[in-house]
Amino acid sequence: MTAINLARKLAQFDGHWQPRVVSQFNGHDLMVAKLKGEFVWHKHDDTDDFFLVLHGRVTIRMRDGDVTLGPGELYVVPKGVEHCPVADGEAHVLLIERAGTPNTGDPGTAAPRREL
Amino acid sequence: MTAINLARKLAQFDGHWQPRVVSQFNGHDLMVAKLKGEFVWHKHDDTDDFFLVLHGRVTIRMRDGDVTLGPGELYVVPKGVEHCPVADGEAHVLLIERAGTPNTGDPGTAAPRREL
Repeated sequence: MTAINLARKLAQFDGHWQPRVVSQFNGHDLMVAKLKGEFVWHKHDDTDDFFLVLHGRVTIRMRDGDVTLGPGELYVVPKGVEHCPVADGEAHVLLIERAGTPNTGDPGTAAPRREL
Repeated sequence: MTAINLARKLAQFDGHWQPRVVSQFNGHDLMVAKLKGEFVWHKHDDTDDFFLVLHGRVTIRMRDGDVTLGPGELYVVPKGVEHCPVADGEAHVLLIERAGTPNTGDPGTAAPRREL
């Protein structure tokens, strides 16, 4: 029964595009991640994809247009919508997806779900 | 297809304990709220209750102990767990609950769900 300090969780690892699960919520994973560079185009057929930027800037490219997020800004990519997150510098985010969702949309290439 | 800036959303209203829905996610409402003073003891039998503090400090009282959150700290109150949020000064939070959940745990006393 303790507060989850997101900055402190983020200080515990270095890898990019490797979300760490910090808590659960109604069958979803609450995750922090460090993003840098360009990810892969992908989609999640079974879950919306929640991004809240904590540090830096993230552009979520989509086929119909881009959304750029700074600290304190969020965006929900609807399920089934192709997207490609990009961060020019390092960015830190809070992510929420259904528990077990592969981060690339494909279990074969997804980063393993790791707890913090 | 635009970023949701939480501080800008919070600047659009004044009332305390009156969450405003800013987006949806997998059947959940994403809400911002201003908290000040002591709320009521309540529980939600059908949903976990997500609190992320954006500004100020919030203590979530529970029967087994309290959790105090500052900016960048989150806590998930499990479904069915009685809790009473308290904020000595004004605090701003991001809340996530299943869409339509009464904020007091009781439809008779709940604040109406308002969109921003």
